[in-house]
Amino acid sequence: MPDLEKIYRYIEDHKSEHIAKVQEYLRQPSISAENKGIRECADLLMEYYRKLGCREVELVETEGHPCIWAHYDVGAPKTLINYCMYDVQPVAGEVWTFPPFDATLVEKPPFKKVVIARGAFNSKGGYRMWLNALESIIAVEGKLPVNIMFTAEGEEELGSPHLEQFIRQYEDQLRRADAVLNTGPSQQIDGSIRMAMGAKGIFEFELECSGSLWGRGPKEFDVHSSMKAAADSPIWRFIHALASLTSEDGNTVQIEGFYDNVLPPSEEDLELIDQLEKTFNPEVWQRMFKIDHWIDDLQGRDLLIRFLYSPTLNIQGIYGGHIGAGSKTVLPHKVACKADIRLVPKMTVNEVMSKLRAHLDRRGYKDILIKPLAGYSPAKVSYKTAIAQAVIQTYRKNGIEPQIWPISGGSWPMYLYCGDPINLPYCSGGLGHGGNAHSPDEYLVIEGDGKVAGIVEAEKSYVDILYNYAGSS
Amino acid sequence: MPDLEKIYRYIEDHKSEHIAKVQEYLRQPSISAENKGIRECADLLMEYYRKLGCREVELVETEGHPCIWAHYDVGAPKTLINYCMYDVQPVAGEVWTFPPFDATLVEKPPFKKVVIARGAFNSKGGYRMWLNALESIIAVEGKLPVNIMFTAEGEEELGSPHLEQFIRQYEDQLRRADAVLNTGPSQQIDGSIRMAMGAKGIFEFELECSGSLWGRGPKEFDVHSSMKAAADSPIWRFIHALASLTSEDGNTVQIEGFYDNVLPPSEEDLELIDQLEKTFNPEVWQRMFKIDHWIDDLQGRDLLIRFLYSPTLNIQGIYGGHIGAGSKTVLPHKVACKADIRLVPKMTVNEVMSKLRAHLDRRGYKDILIKPLAGYSPAKVSYKTAIAQAVIQTYRKNGIEPQIWPISGGSWPMYLYCGDPINLPYCSGGLGHGGNAHSPDEYLVIEGDGKVAGIVEAEKSYVDILYNYAGSS
Repeated sequence: MPDLEKIYRYIEDHKSEHIAKVQEYLRQPSISAENKGIRECADLLMEYYRKLGCREVELVETEGHPCIWAHYDVGAPKTLINYCMYDVQPVAGEVWTFPPFDATLVEKPPFKKVVIARGAFNSKGGYRMWLNALESIIAVEGKLPVNIMFTAEGEEELGSPHLEQFIRQYEDQLRRADAVLNTGPSQQIDGSIRMAMGAKGIFEFELECSGSLWGRGPKEFDVHSSMKAAADSPIWRFIHALASLTSEDGNTVQIEGFYDNVLPPSEEDLELIDQLEKTFNPEVWQRMFKIDHWIDDLQGRDLLIRFLYSPTLNIQGIYGGHIGAGSKTVLPHKVACKADIRLVPKMTVNEVMSKLRAHLDRRGYKDILIKPLAGYSPAKVSYKTAIAQAVIQTYRKNGIEPQIWPISGGSWPMYLYCGDPINLPYCSGGLGHGGNAHSPDEYLVIEGDGKVAGIVEAEKSYVDILYNYAGSS
Repeated sequence: MPDLEKIYRYIEDHKSEHIAKVQEYLRQPSISAENKGIRECADLLMEYYRKLGCREVELVETEGHPCIWAHYDVGAPKTLINYCMYDVQPVAGEVWTFPPFDATLVEKPPFKKVVIARGAFNSKGGYRMWLNALESIIAVEGKLPVNIMFTAEGEEELGSPHLEQFIRQYEDQLRRADAVLNTGPSQQIDGSIRMAMGAKGIFEFELECSGSLWGRGPKEFDVHSSMKAAADSPIWRFIHALASLTSEDGNTVQIEGFYDNVLPPSEEDLELIDQLEKTFNPEVWQRMFKIDHWIDDLQGRDLLIRFLYSPTLNIQGIYGGHIGAGSKTVLPHKVACKADIRLVPKMTVNEVMSKLRAHLDRRGYKDILIKPLAGYSPAKVSYKTAIAQAVIQTYRKNGIEPQIWPISGGSWPMYLYCGDPINLPYCSGGLGHGGNAHSPDEYLVIEGDGKVAGIVEAEKSYVDILYNYAGSS
């Protein structure tokens, strides 16, 4: 039997060191979109895996940023797969109170101490806490109670375009694992816990409209805007093409057949939603995202179902013509936007891409370019598996009855682990709290407030999950 | 009687010096939108006016960039007003073959020598040639045959927001003048000449849509795009609001009442258009602007009427959300565009601004902000006045029968001189050719090709216009 109390004490005794490790990892930039610090961050992560005692630690080249394979194998009866992303979102154009790669420790009421950094919450901060927990177990017990296959990628924020390449390469080994466990700070600001038993898929792409492809309007450069009286405008064409894609409120996608393969909530989903409704508090979102009203002023159950079961078409950014200071009387020759479509089961990337193409073609917009950037399928698993129950028991030990979400609003390539051919049970969890993902002043709590765990309690929760699972039948 | 031949020879003999003066003026940046080099350029222009022998040379402060008043008064029977802009368009984001403020002299077939610079054509290059011509007359004859009131502004490319302040200040003196003469390179690439007897007005503005003003969607920052399933998008709102402003082809403005005050061509206009049609060659435009097809595939007379008598709504640029490299899964909190409306007689800025506001309000877009940037009225005069005939006679002397355009597609604040209360006759003209206004590699011809005048022939034409007018009854 493991001496859990001794492991807990070890974590308490090494708190400063563990905080420093979190800072070390966050101070290494790893912006995948700008290829900034990616290799250095991969090196650092491999060093962490080596220190754990992994037998195999391999940098796996892909057509994009490298993945990492690390195998911790002590001949334990059970083997987990652990996934992580080591990349982060860009910070360009954002206004931060503290430099995004300083990993500054500050008070952020109600928390006495948080670390502010790009990646603090999403998701390098929590990942380093997980590694701290594993190191603590090994320091006290000599080894982990399970084997772990670590799989890390550096392109999650680009839509994981090459993760599949990597997974296929290690497929035979991965299929021999028993379950997938991902860890991270899962508490909301009120201390409550969300567990997501699925993830939406995503298709990220650019749309571009230009005079050169259209064959009308200015083809090669922006011309004097007086010419608008005689010449067609690619920007106006683009505006009308985009407007055809959604209802006037921007909330219903009008691409023909877009919703055809959307599965409605299953019976198990509806039971989970019944439970969820009791504790779901959209005010947490309102505070976090500074949003006062939801689509159609939806509340409670309706808002939940809308959020979880709706595919979306979102414009990430739009740009064309004169975007500098002052005014410039030009008729621009091209314009583009970046967009993402979130997919719910059973939609696929190829399906929505071809439906988008057909929609534009049917309206005469054959010249408008779709440049695919990334994409993967949605996935969904049950919460009744041993790995999910190991996480849920940990929460209950801490007096928390988790909200179990049948699927998350966000996306990660869970389908690679939980879909064919690997088809493993999966769970993600752990105590701790962070916020402002993809936004300025991203943070992760270091000192909890009684409701939300700090670093010590978070790391202890990872220890508990691991032993719960190792001891399960 | 003036010794015109001697003046011509003086111009020929001082060609290198005159080219150097053109380069000097073009090498002084004067980007009004970025306040770059404006004061320095005004200083240089004042130095030019002093060198001519102007009695009064005054820097006139406005709420924006300064204007210049300079009075050349030798007690001649007739007095001209001369207007110029000393500012230029920005170059940011443009790709130039030669640095835009080097004023490089290069061969550009069919021309043996052109000067490449921002402002070469629009309009500092030609203006410096005009000053060269005036200096040559004074060098030979001792004085000009007319008095000239020089009025210069440094905000033409911003829509001349403060020119009216300046004109009102000198109104009493300006009203005592006899006519307005502006000069510049007026030949198209085939050597033909356009004269524009009017100018469209313009209203430049920004439109902005934000979650904070709307009260829906993200208010303070861009949030994670997974939230699109629950939150409204200011960008989608903006797309639909913009789409409501024009027909699907972007060419008919659907703001209620937009065309109410558009005057159809007068009988004199239609006679001019009959003449114009005979020599109007849209292929010149096609080569210049790299545009293959015109609106509705219009040709000839229909294209002319469309170009001259249509007010327009043009988007200069649009920008919002993530516009950097790669992809960023955000739901943006705001988006904006810059736009211009070109006005034809008898439209007014206030009219279109309030109609645009009413259009948006009626559709529930009360929160979409209209930020006026600049604006002025259209204006139109007759080609039968002495000043216009002085220009036309100069062209005929050079074997050119000018195309007389009843109005230009472009805009300048002609209404300030030709509208109430100054109401003077007006003409603009001169030999010479340039191109790529508001575009990369803007140029002005230095060595002509037989069809198009070089610097020497251009300067001689300015001399002729001045003496034609001085000698007219």
